[in-house]
Amino acid sequence: MANTRRILHLVVRFVAFAATFCAAIIMAASHERGSISTMSFEAKYTVFPFFEYFLVVNSVATVYGFLVLFIPTESLLWQPVVAVDLVLTMALISSFSAAYAIGMVGMKGNSYWKPICGSIPKYCDKVTGAFVADLIAVVIYIILLLNSIHTALNPLLLKKKLSNFSG
Amino acid sequence: MANTRRILHLVVRFVAFAATFCAAIIMAASHERGSISTMSFEAKYTVFPFFEYFLVVNSVATVYGFLVLFIPTESLLWQPVVAVDLVLTMALISSFSAAYAIGMVGMKGNSYWKPICGSIPKYCDKVTGAFVADLIAVVIYIILLLNSIHTALNPLLLKKKLSNFSG
Repeated sequence: MANTRRILHLVVRFVAFAATFCAAIIMAASHERGSISTMSFEAKYTVFPFFEYFLVVNSVATVYGFLVLFIPTESLLWQPVVAVDLVLTMALISSFSAAYAIGMVGMKGNSYWKPICGSIPKYCDKVTGAFVADLIAVVIYIILLLNSIHTALNPLLLKKKLSNFSG
Repeated sequence: MANTRRILHLVVRFVAFAATFCAAIIMAASHERGSISTMSFEAKYTVFPFFEYFLVVNSVATVYGFLVLFIPTESLLWQPVVAVDLVLTMALISSFSAAYAIGMVGMKGNSYWKPICGSIPKYCDKVTGAFVADLIAVVIYIILLLNSIHTALNPLLLKKKLSNFSG
């Protein structure tokens, strides 16, 4: 039972790692040349500071997600991992939200800014793919965090630990 | 010592409550009429969907932050509070990041969209104030969360708890 949980934990973490890896690669590699009126331009992550932020955070998450897979099961390193998970999840949520807000203006525009996805449809599709991959990673990290908190604070489990300890 | 910690905890939570309250009020109340070229417009949170999101999350955080102040010290309700803190902090980070990204485009513009703060300077100043208040709340909630995780997972503290329990 404990072994199944551990394998499931690793599989879930591997999916999160793969998702951030895909999000980073797609964001880094996507570019398209388009034109609005007579102005020609290159759409790329470097044009939007918040897309750069998205790429940086996902790259860091990819490296961290990869390294965590090699922490031995009984290692004490799993304790700081919860805190690092928390900070990383916040960075992922922050970068996703900021990039998504910019992406939505690009797609739908608003009273002040016109949408630009009509001129760069492929780029917008790819960025949407990066967002979806990132969202999968965010959801996984939130579940891992809630699970950690539940495990750490569950009074029943704590009592079990205590009885194991005193018995 | 324990009492000082409790009072400090409540004071910190009160500041977070006040910060989200200010952020929500400023965002809800700010509006300014401006014009770009010949087009006249009203700048308000309803114009930007992510500013509405910011307002909703800060309103929820205000109500929650107020209610939490009345939880008795020894109540078991403090256990789910950690999980709710986590979800709320994520919502605050998400809404801050999205609104900030839009705010930055409004302030600085980019290759595709022109800045609009020149036409609505007072509105931009007030929204910046709301962002600062929100950021204070976010930082406080992150510190509270890291403190909870530290307290819950600290092996020394756990050992102390265990020795109290078995002794």
